[in-house]
Amino acid sequence: MSQPPTDIEALIALMARLPGLGPRSARRAVLHLIRKRGQVMLPLATAMAEVARSVQECGRCGNLSSTPLCPICTDPRREGAEICVVEDIADLWAMERGGSFRGRYHVLGGTLSALDAVGPEDLRIPALVGRINDEGVSEVILALNATVDGQTTAHYIQDALALTGVRISALAQGVPMGGELDFLDDGTISAALKARKIIPGA
Amino acid sequence: MSQPPTDIEALIALMARLPGLGPRSARRAVLHLIRKRGQVMLPLATAMAEVARSVQECGRCGNLSSTPLCPICTDPRREGAEICVVEDIADLWAMERGGSFRGRYHVLGGTLSALDAVGPEDLRIPALVGRINDEGVSEVILALNATVDGQTTAHYIQDALALTGVRISALAQGVPMGGELDFLDDGTISAALKARKIIPGA
Ligand SMILES: [Zn+2]
Ligand SMILES: [Zn+2]
Repeated sequence: MSQPPTDIEALIALMARLPGLGPRSARRAVLHLIRKRGQVMLPLATAMAEVARSVQECGRCGNLSSTPLCPICTDPRREGAEICVVEDIADLWAMERGGSFRGRYHVLGGTLSALDAVGPEDLRIPALVGRINDEGVSEVILALNATVDGQTTAHYIQDALALTGVRISALAQGVPMGGELDFLDDGTISAALKARKIIPGA
Repeated sequence: MSQPPTDIEALIALMARLPGLGPRSARRAVLHLIRKRGQVMLPLATAMAEVARSVQECGRCGNLSSTPLCPICTDPRREGAEICVVEDIADLWAMERGGSFRGRYHVLGGTLSALDAVGPEDLRIPALVGRINDEGVSEVILALNATVDGQTTAHYIQDALALTGVRISALAQGVPMGGELDFLDDGTISAALKARKIIPGA
């Protein structure tokens, strides 16, 4: 019995590892690519290799960048006194699509998890504490997902920042329980940012 | 307002053109790739470029191949007297997964369509007629999708082959109305092949 040629099989297996694609949709996607190998497949392969080669994490905020510091960190029009803490890059993009935040970011790269052995250093929380003084930050806006892990991490960060005296707020109105930022429409995110509330006693 | 870096944006736009991926799932897939740029992204880019470079259509049956004739056409253990006609490569793969067909293939690359101006030459139907004599074919098995277009094309092929005197059969039992081969489980395809019925008067 014959299967797809070995190199196509290998390609299908790699595609099937992408989130949202199973074996069948990976086969469909690969056939689609082969049909459009000039217009889509080669440009996609090139773009992928180029991004893999050039992409790096911003040394300050963890955003993706092709330079050591990202465009947001080096943009003088962004408000350095406000740092918005997000779990991952997708959430940073979602905040930016909202379009109303003018400060800078701190990308944790996940949430605290005893199960997966993710500790504060893995999330660059010590680096966040360091930024408060170094950059003259007056407010930290916690924009973590409204999940158990997200809120556990938010509480940990509140504690870690307590001694700095910085004002801490959190996205409030509009983020539904169990909701994830990247699923929300842009208006909801803007409203939640505008109605953010100071956390009492923090 | 900042967006993903330009090269990442371009990659997301290309990924979003794959069947089954929208803008949001393309963003998720690209972030996943960037996180695993060593283990997944670079190998995927390389595999894609390699397939785009090497893949071609078998000059005889239309199967995908890295050689001018595909492994099925050159395998002496495959029965040259039986040709199974399928709409596209995904259907050939589905037949092969079924595992009970031991003959060779003819891949049409679509169905007849007045609307899309797809004619018999576009589907390599004249080449199919030529193969009947050249290869000493005794039976043509029509394994087209049970859709209106698939069955219209099947009838056209029956007419085109009438003068050759070749026996024509069609997948019978197990293919549900409106069903597409690539969605069926392997056992159903095997059963349909086994119970194929001679088309009377053809
Ligand atoms: Zn940055
Ligand atoms: Zn072939």
